[in-house]
Amino acid sequence: MQERAKATRRSLLEAAAQLFAEQGYAATSVNDISARSGRTSGAVYFHYDGKEGIAVAVVEDRFATWSQLAARYADETVPPLERLVALSYDIAHALTRDPVTRAGARLWAERTVIKAPVPDPFALWTTAATRLLAQARLAGQVNEHIRPARTARTLVRAFFGLCTLTEVLEGTTVLDDRLTDWWHLTLPSLRPRSS
Amino acid sequence: MQERAKATRRSLLEAAAQLFAEQGYAATSVNDISARSGRTSGAVYFHYDGKEGIAVAVVEDRFATWSQLAARYADETVPPLERLVALSYDIAHALTRDPVTRAGARLWAERTVIKAPVPDPFALWTTAATRLLAQARLAGQVNEHIRPARTARTLVRAFFGLCTLTEVLEGTTVLDDRLTDWWHLTLPSLRPRSS
Repeated sequence: MQERAKATRRSLLEAAAQLFAEQGYAATSVNDISARSGRTSGAVYFHYDGKEGIAVAVVEDRFATWSQLAARYADETVPPLERLVALSYDIAHALTRDPVTRAGARLWAERTVIKAPVPDPFALWTTAATRLLAQARLAGQVNEHIRPARTARTLVRAFFGLCTLTEVLEGTTVLDDRLTDWWHLTLPSLRPRSS
Repeated sequence: MQERAKATRRSLLEAAAQLFAEQGYAATSVNDISARSGRTSGAVYFHYDGKEGIAVAVVEDRFATWSQLAARYADETVPPLERLVALSYDIAHALTRDPVTRAGARLWAERTVIKAPVPDPFALWTTAATRLLAQARLAGQVNEHIRPARTARTLVRAFFGLCTLTEVLEGTTVLDDRLTDWWHLTLPSLRPRSS
């Protein structure tokens, strides 16, 4: 019975994520989610407290938690600065290809029309980037003038702007190339001055 | 009479901009714009074709046209790279302090709920930045590996992400400081290698 409830919750969440990613929050109704999932509208209210509730659950499931972060972040066989760059491509790929992540990002962008607080991943990303930059500085891989927390904050905001504007202006197929342009413009400033 | 029509249009536009900047597109009605401006609701329909029309007019008035760009951009007494940096602060100041620009940016962010195409300033900014970078490269102020159009595209997207996320996460009072952090992280990559 608990397994069945879990399966219902998951199928509602994935149907809602598809719809939110395709057509946005305002244009998606509880009836649409019911029709796409093959479950009743009542199930949306029972399991998620309605449309706001399921929207917040979609954001929390992937976009705002970022389970991908954990494996890359902890992989100590890879130098910290390389891990930071790899993480940025992981996130870009999720934003491009994973429907639940895409829905989360779109819902976050549309948060002003959602009558519930919509969580975001920026504090989490900034903490991860700060630690990797601090490790990289200790290892002599970034220059000693870099202040990890301040640089991480700047990188996260610029990165997110790059991803979201690239999708709006050109679509997601070029995102990897644009991210590479951005790292080419950013890495020389991070590198040790003497090398 | 034409002057009077102009004054009515301007007062409607400024009232609408205040309301859109404060509470967003969805929460603002034609009645609100009428009440704030002291004009009739009929005037909103007559002069602007209703709420979508006045929203698009607000975006076009400042955010998407950027009259500030012209004076800075053309000031040949200032080296091109300095002009580019100064332009970024001008834009950040307008996004922080000018109600019509702020409203335009918010409406652009909320464009998915507006039933009309909402123009954006990114092509204009990218063209301006491309020309300034090309001039700077000719003058030996940026390194010869910099490709102006590609770099301009990257800078505009990162810059806009920095401005919008900073406002969301910390408010506008720190925007100048965050922009300075970003330039400190970006300028070393632009500078000539040998200097």
